[in-house]
Amino acid sequence: MLVEPPKCLTKPLFVPNKLLMGPGPSNCSPRVLQAMSQQTLGHLHTETTYIMDEIKEGIKYIFQTRNTLTLCVSAAGHAAIEAVMCNLLEPGDVVLIAVNGIWGDRASDMAERYGAIVRQIRTEPGNNFTLKQIEEGLVKYKPVLFFIIQGESSTGCYQPLEHLGDLCHRYNCLLGVDTVASLGSVPVKMDEWNIDAIYTGSQKCLSAPPGITPMSFSKKAEKKIFSRKTPVKVYYLDMKLLGDYWNCFGKPRIYHHTVSATLLYGLREALAIFCEEGIDNSIRRHQTCARKLYEGLDRLGMQFLIRDVNKRLPTVTTIAVPDFVNWRDVVEYAMKTYYFEISGGLGPTAGKVFRIGLMGYNATLDNVDYTLRIFEESLNYGRSKFKASKL
Amino acid sequence: MLVEPPKCLTKPLFVPNKLLMGPGPSNCSPRVLQAMSQQTLGHLHTETTYIMDEIKEGIKYIFQTRNTLTLCVSAAGHAAIEAVMCNLLEPGDVVLIAVNGIWGDRASDMAERYGAIVRQIRTEPGNNFTLKQIEEGLVKYKPVLFFIIQGESSTGCYQPLEHLGDLCHRYNCLLGVDTVASLGSVPVKMDEWNIDAIYTGSQKCLSAPPGITPMSFSKKAEKKIFSRKTPVKVYYLDMKLLGDYWNCFGKPRIYHHTVSATLLYGLREALAIFCEEGIDNSIRRHQTCARKLYEGLDRLGMQFLIRDVNKRLPTVTTIAVPDFVNWRDVVEYAMKTYYFEISGGLGPTAGKVFRIGLMGYNATLDNVDYTLRIFEESLNYGRSKFKASKL
Repeated sequence: MLVEPPKCLTKPLFVPNKLLMGPGPSNCSPRVLQAMSQQTLGHLHTETTYIMDEIKEGIKYIFQTRNTLTLCVSAAGHAAIEAVMCNLLEPGDVVLIAVNGIWGDRASDMAERYGAIVRQIRTEPGNNFTLKQIEEGLVKYKPVLFFIIQGESSTGCYQPLEHLGDLCHRYNCLLGVDTVASLGSVPVKMDEWNIDAIYTGSQKCLSAPPGITPMSFSKKAEKKIFSRKTPVKVYYLDMKLLGDYWNCFGKPRIYHHTVSATLLYGLREALAIFCEEGIDNSIRRHQTCARKLYEGLDRLGMQFLIRDVNKRLPTVTTIAVPDFVNWRDVVEYAMKTYYFEISGGLGPTAGKVFRIGLMGYNATLDNVDYTLRIFEESLNYGRSKFKASKL
Repeated sequence: MLVEPPKCLTKPLFVPNKLLMGPGPSNCSPRVLQAMSQQTLGHLHTETTYIMDEIKEGIKYIFQTRNTLTLCVSAAGHAAIEAVMCNLLEPGDVVLIAVNGIWGDRASDMAERYGAIVRQIRTEPGNNFTLKQIEEGLVKYKPVLFFIIQGESSTGCYQPLEHLGDLCHRYNCLLGVDTVASLGSVPVKMDEWNIDAIYTGSQKCLSAPPGITPMSFSKKAEKKIFSRKTPVKVYYLDMKLLGDYWNCFGKPRIYHHTVSATLLYGLREALAIFCEEGIDNSIRRHQTCARKLYEGLDRLGMQFLIRDVNKRLPTVTTIAVPDFVNWRDVVEYAMKTYYFEISGGLGPTAGKVFRIGLMGYNATLDNVDYTLRIFEESLNYGRSKFKASKL
């Protein structure tokens, strides 16, 4: 044997039970974990395709859409951004992307790889876009697709989407929307708001595991996909093929890839839980928890990255790192002492903020109390450590 | 509400416990299922990256390689084919693909999407390629990449890989190899055989869930990736970025996507089980089971698609459908009566063969006996039904 079996694999798997109060993933509920421990099934078995059909119905509910091209990609949320770009753009097409954090830049990177001409409207991290700004961009760049993020998880900023679809369509442009970090905590109305492409994260407010990502495309988007002059670059994300596998076009299913039955079980159970609670209750719960968190943080004397409460995303609260601590000490203390996750910043907010998440299964008033207690203790620890280092 | 919560999701999830004796997925062992029921972790938590490191060591063992660019893509095996193509090919590059079943054609489709010039050498389904045929292809087409499938699961054909790497390198060409359906049942020696890109399926002989796919790239392949003139089209599969996330280049990890902790747990446990048994024992077990299956099928008077035993893949046995049955009756009887999976054909073998799988956790002598008993009973049922339909 050139390579011997590694010693590290002779030890048992170690998975601590953490409380994930960062910007995702959130904890899975015991029901979701139980579902995922069931035996695997074949990718075209009747029971599997039945579960896929149930998942489609659940996705239509969460996005509030009747779109037939509603399905999952068998990959993380990043692949869903790519799926929007590679299906709706052809080389030379102009795409306009709204950038106020990491996700707009990432989407731009992806679109460019597929040969699109990327134009951006930008605003400072922590701010969102007005209809006027967006309209100016549409007028100036004449894009075939406008892409915007409803919940910018790197800054905790909320972007309203009402009227955007109509605006885009007036300029003959499709509207693509990222609701990874927002869905479940704020309204999402795909059909009413005339959104053309949408996706969300399984591991945020749905509290399912990552690795499978719900998406939906409008009839307008579907038409664009079916009238492409060039093939979609990525076989794995080609909606014409995936739509056949997910039975979106009313034709017999065709094998496209081997879907992970385990992830289907988890997502299906998470959608069932979401449907039991209902969208409105879920939104109310997230917003109530967020308000309680804001109050507690106010009492601790914290400064928010986003002053205007209406621009804050209920799921991700960004707190300016006080100048008396090193952010890393705070985060590490909570993790090492309590297996408790508070996050630092990401992209434009790296080193500047703490991010506290309130998502899905974890968004409870009890968890807010617990979070405030641990955050305060961790801050105090950070302050002493920082002081000591200055002596 | 435009769309109400779907009624179907108010019922409990239904997952029967099947015995999957088709060409994959195979059943997960109870240890793997237990591992996957553990709570999720963040994608950059210490414990997660520790598990990723352990998985890398396990993958180096299964491929028998010391390559540093050894990791997983967070997607099904199909995405690994794409990862080979989109990382190793640039627009205008010539790729030579060996086609003797569905997988060569699928790989060709993918390579073409990325703008490569696809050339093929072909042989009839059920046959494999000689070094001479391959060398003729290399001479004629001067490809930068030659791609071949070690285990063609649509036909059950085994392709020896010895000497292929040296041959390709003599013609200044990289060698990419698919071992999805073969690894664990026949030798795979990436470094000794000078293979440049390789991947395998998690859900075949490893008996982990689908959705996460082990890969490895040689130094030669890595050099090609880092000297590309054009960006890799797919962000999600870009090895320069993924290699950073999996800490393959000795630099600090950078967030690339949210890996599914659940799938990591399952794969890690499956690799641990594989390492406990050892490669040689695994190969011996699969081959012993296959021989016993061949003997039993001989006794039943079955005809094999592949006459030459040396060209048969131990994991997938293809049996000609006798003219006295409709293949679908046989397969459906086994499934409905026993929750037992025997498969029909795929691609060039669709409607022509039964495929019986012997993979990983399912490859035991007891399961061979059980399979033969159920196959015989199902055939008898199929024969009576066929006779009745002719009366």
